[in-house]
Amino acid sequence: MINSSVDFQGVLEEIEDEVRPFFGQGKNADYIPALSDVPGHKFAMAVQTVDGETFMIGDAEENFSIQSISKLFTLMQVLGLEDVDIWSRVGREPSGTAFNSLVQLEYEKGIPRNPFINAGAIVVTDILASRSADPSRRIDDYYRMLSGNPANKVDEVVALSEQEHGYRNAALANLMRSFDNIETPIPDLLDVYFRQCALTTSCVDLAKAALPLVCGGYSPIAQSQVLSGRDTKRINALLLTCGLYDAVGSFAYKVGLPAKSGVGGGIVAVLPKHFSIAVWSPELDASGNSLVGSKALELFTTKTDLSIF
Amino acid sequence: MINSSVDFQGVLEEIEDEVRPFFGQGKNADYIPALSDVPGHKFAMAVQTVDGETFMIGDAEENFSIQSISKLFTLMQVLGLEDVDIWSRVGREPSGTAFNSLVQLEYEKGIPRNPFINAGAIVVTDILASRSADPSRRIDDYYRMLSGNPANKVDEVVALSEQEHGYRNAALANLMRSFDNIETPIPDLLDVYFRQCALTTSCVDLAKAALPLVCGGYSPIAQSQVLSGRDTKRINALLLTCGLYDAVGSFAYKVGLPAKSGVGGGIVAVLPKHFSIAVWSPELDASGNSLVGSKALELFTTKTDLSIF
Amino acid sequence: MINSSVDFQGVLEEIEDEVRPFFGQGKNADYIPALSDVPGHKFAMAVQTVDGETFMIGDAEENFSIQSISKLFTLMQVLGLEDVDIWSRVGREPSGTAFNSLVQLEYEKGIPRNPFINAGAIVVTDILASRSADPSRRIDDYYRMLSGNPANKVDEVVALSEQEHGYRNAALANLMRSFDNIETPIPDLLDVYFRQCALTTSCVDLAKAALPLVCGGYSPIAQSQVLSGRDTKRINALLLTCGLYDAVGSFAYKVGLPAKSGVGGGIVAVLPKHFSIAVWSPELDASGNSLVGSKALELFTTKTDLSIF
Amino acid sequence: MINSSVDFQGVLEEIEDEVRPFFGQGKNADYIPALSDVPGHKFAMAVQTVDGETFMIGDAEENFSIQSISKLFTLMQVLGLEDVDIWSRVGREPSGTAFNSLVQLEYEKGIPRNPFINAGAIVVTDILASRSADPSRRIDDYYRMLSGNPANKVDEVVALSEQEHGYRNAALANLMRSFDNIETPIPDLLDVYFRQCALTTSCVDLAKAALPLVCGGYSPIAQSQVLSGRDTKRINALLLTCGLYDAVGSFAYKVGLPAKSGVGGGIVAVLPKHFSIAVWSPELDASGNSLVGSKALELFTTKTDLSIF
Repeated sequence: MINSSVDFQGVLEEIEDEVRPFFGQGKNADYIPALSDVPGHKFAMAVQTVDGETFMIGDAEENFSIQSISKLFTLMQVLGLEDVDIWSRVGREPSGTAFNSLVQLEYEKGIPRNPFINAGAIVVTDILASRSADPSRRIDDYYRMLSGNPANKVDEVVALSEQEHGYRNAALANLMRSFDNIETPIPDLLDVYFRQCALTTSCVDLAKAALPLVCGGYSPIAQSQVLSGRDTKRINALLLTCGLYDAVGSFAYKVGLPAKSGVGGGIVAVLPKHFSIAVWSPELDASGNSLVGSKALELFTTKTDLSIF
Repeated sequence: MINSSVDFQGVLEEIEDEVRPFFGQGKNADYIPALSDVPGHKFAMAVQTVDGETFMIGDAEENFSIQSISKLFTLMQVLGLEDVDIWSRVGREPSGTAFNSLVQLEYEKGIPRNPFINAGAIVVTDILASRSADPSRRIDDYYRMLSGNPANKVDEVVALSEQEHGYRNAALANLMRSFDNIETPIPDLLDVYFRQCALTTSCVDLAKAALPLVCGGYSPIAQSQVLSGRDTKRINALLLTCGLYDAVGSFAYKVGLPAKSGVGGGIVAVLPKHFSIAVWSPELDASGNSLVGSKALELFTTKTDLSIF
Repeated sequence: MINSSVDFQGVLEEIEDEVRPFFGQGKNADYIPALSDVPGHKFAMAVQTVDGETFMIGDAEENFSIQSISKLFTLMQVLGLEDVDIWSRVGREPSGTAFNSLVQLEYEKGIPRNPFINAGAIVVTDILASRSADPSRRIDDYYRMLSGNPANKVDEVVALSEQEHGYRNAALANLMRSFDNIETPIPDLLDVYFRQCALTTSCVDLAKAALPLVCGGYSPIAQSQVLSGRDTKRINALLLTCGLYDAVGSFAYKVGLPAKSGVGGGIVAVLPKHFSIAVWSPELDASGNSLVGSKALELFTTKTDLSIF
Repeated sequence: MINSSVDFQGVLEEIEDEVRPFFGQGKNADYIPALSDVPGHKFAMAVQTVDGETFMIGDAEENFSIQSISKLFTLMQVLGLEDVDIWSRVGREPSGTAFNSLVQLEYEKGIPRNPFINAGAIVVTDILASRSADPSRRIDDYYRMLSGNPANKVDEVVALSEQEHGYRNAALANLMRSFDNIETPIPDLLDVYFRQCALTTSCVDLAKAALPLVCGGYSPIAQSQVLSGRDTKRINALLLTCGLYDAVGSFAYKVGLPAKSGVGGGIVAVLPKHFSIAVWSPELDASGNSLVGSKALELFTTKTDLSIF
């Protein structure tokens, strides 16, 4: 087992020291108070190995806002459903522009480029919403099943704030609806979408919830095969090519792991067959990814020489 | 008086003959039944001179759906208000692309290129809506004042249909709201906007209502100065450069009059100091303008040698 | 005769006073020394009436660089040829973006939006170049015929500088060639194009050369019908909708005359059947049009109440 | 050693059978005769393992046109140079649009999104061209060193054809030059670029030449460390996120290997620490990648369960 030779705890401790100079270079998300008010120098990491070991540093059990990382879990949930043809409604290519641009969506007739840009994630949520009486609860339950933590709940203040600042997402949903790529009534759909982004979670929870991407679709937490092996590989490929907004290339280049980020400052990444890793640090870089979190993951793959490349 | 030498009635009758071969080359708007069901070969024209004469041909007193021509009258209405700085919220340049594109709106930070594309017209309506308890009624009253016809009313079936197919306009409004360029709650605003587009009018009404653009801002129907002379010239300039969707250049080239069209098949045009002219024929060309109507106006300015150029 | 009641000379003198506060607000074109080195506070105007009168103020007989105004004269020259179908190779719609953008050209398969953006002007020159052994000389001769001034010559220093900074125009030409919309070998074509932009002329020359657009296609200078009446109107329409880069709407709104500008600081405008007018002032506004020149023309149409609207 | 348990030869033979139904579904590149005239049903594969073993099927030693795969080797060559800051002149993000689009290049001020789109590859070649007296020869020598085959030569007929159809690349180069991102005189630069694309090679050569990406930067053929371990990983990351034109996402999703394709029908892919693999089949899919080649690689990673995910 390649993992056994690595001193994960020691590596995490080294990283905690080495990222310090980078605090203050990024900036909290500032479009809602609930995100801008989080102390900017928060830092936590958690590693979950395929062997069942957990390593952590910092406030790895403290909750933060999952934000766009929720897009990964709704995608997993949809791919676990039967009789869903998601790929006729969402593409699988990087977007090549800012993550919420309407331009490509219009040129490509309401088909979002991939499930990790906002428009694509809204379509994924639409699939869940059109098949459930209480889609918000269903999304939360799925995540709690994967993390094993019943305390992962929607922060209602955040959900409300998102709603109040969600005009761009409303524009995306309406544009897609004009191309017949949305089924759920838009206010209902956006309510579900904003709630999924307002879920609270910790680094430890995130690392656990991502384990199916490490274990060929099996969740050791839920003790259940939640994805096929084939879909697991495909999600990892999508994460690598589309998971980091407009910084996928740089992230693949520097870190070399499939990953998903959120503007709450979280990033979760996986090395298939080896480990999942989550990091949290609220200050964001110009691409909207955690600045210190990205640096920490780069240090991690450099120090351990563990990446997919 | 240059008009007196022209046999307007004779010219209209010649045109009625000469446009016949063009029926069937265009296609009714088909996104709502109320427009697609109108007999395609309807044809009417009305000329209103500065001297108070009216000339008409065809069903010039039959009502049709005003659609985007309403954008001209809401703009006139806003420019007649005091203390409104519309030009900080809407540009005055041609859009250069399809009339409802979101692309430029996004690149230009939610400021529509001009008041005659949908986004710009929605901002104009927003100005009226944010200053009135019953903006729909106010818009209708203004038009009835200019046309002198109290029978110009909203077609409720059309208004409802617009609402049901208005997702793209909802996308525009939400996008502009995300840039803080919309004040009115969006469902309320769109309701007003869809209602103004569903106003019914005739060629004779339209020609009368456009007279202020002929008479330096004075409405001989309302017997009132509704616009300054300066604003009147400016609206005519805007019509010429922005009034015909993505065909302003061709229209200026062929017809040479400031004009505004609607997908109901109406077009209203003016020659300042001389006359206003309205035409109605429901079949549209690829740019969304009345195909036979455009041809009729081209014949009119060719035959009379009356244009601004 | 409406002109006879206007004191043109008095108006020009008033304008000369009133534009003074605007010097220094714009900025000379700076991409080539020959333009950036021109004294910024130069100012001249010339009016040429349909009755043969000339009025002028400032250095109205001093030469400056014609630059993009040459596009107007090559278009006139091509439209005066027989058997040329220019409109299958160039559109007639405003561009809606910066004047040298490649974006629309690519989306529209190498067909430029109109003959007054660089790409369109290059196609117009291509038509002349593919039909003549010495196209540069032919272009110069045509302009000299219209201005009546054999001293209008290419400034070889400017022509060379253009060549050295013309990579963007080379990109346009190559892109259009990839869509089979250019025939002449590109280095030869660009040489002709850069030379036409380097022609030197004065306000008086420009106002005379534009007279065919005032006189239904007849040049009183050349004593020759150089354009059909129909094409004359059409060129005026194109000027109004496309002649001022990305400021056509504002210019039509403020000035209300068909016009063409150049980055040398010149603008020529016409009121059909009445007069042509040229202005020169080297400092440009953000749209690349003479700032003081635009202001002067606005004052002119306001003071005389003469515009097409 | 994971490879030892896989029957590579047997897998290649199975694939040769299973891809047969896909012949005729794609279409040879048709912009130059030298590519359109290649028999469409050609098929070859070669695998080169880290242990020095070679497996092959079909005409694996027959030469074809390397085309865009050359972009991989010029990038490797530039990264092997000292004192070159390539990343200030080329980005590392997927382009998200067709591979030769000018749009993003203009919006991003002449900085191409990555070194594998044409614009980016031209900048890479510019770096080589500006540092060498005979850059074409230097590029060929580098490739021959990596493949170990002195017979890899430029096909002069193809090079000439490229030149004659290279107007779009000339547009790209001129546009970048206008942003000061090209140093070499453009005709010289394009000559070098078109020659590198006209290099002929075989599957066996390609698989050998790609071995440094498998072996941490060491070429067992040249017996030389040609790249640092760090740059090797980075190139693999760039290949995965940017190597397949507008199909990187789908390719990562289906195949899961860093790879580079060319319109000659070749694709080369690597699994770091394990093997390189090359495939050749001239018929292309809508994205410009070998249709049968992509299918063959998908079958290969499915059958062997060897991919980076």
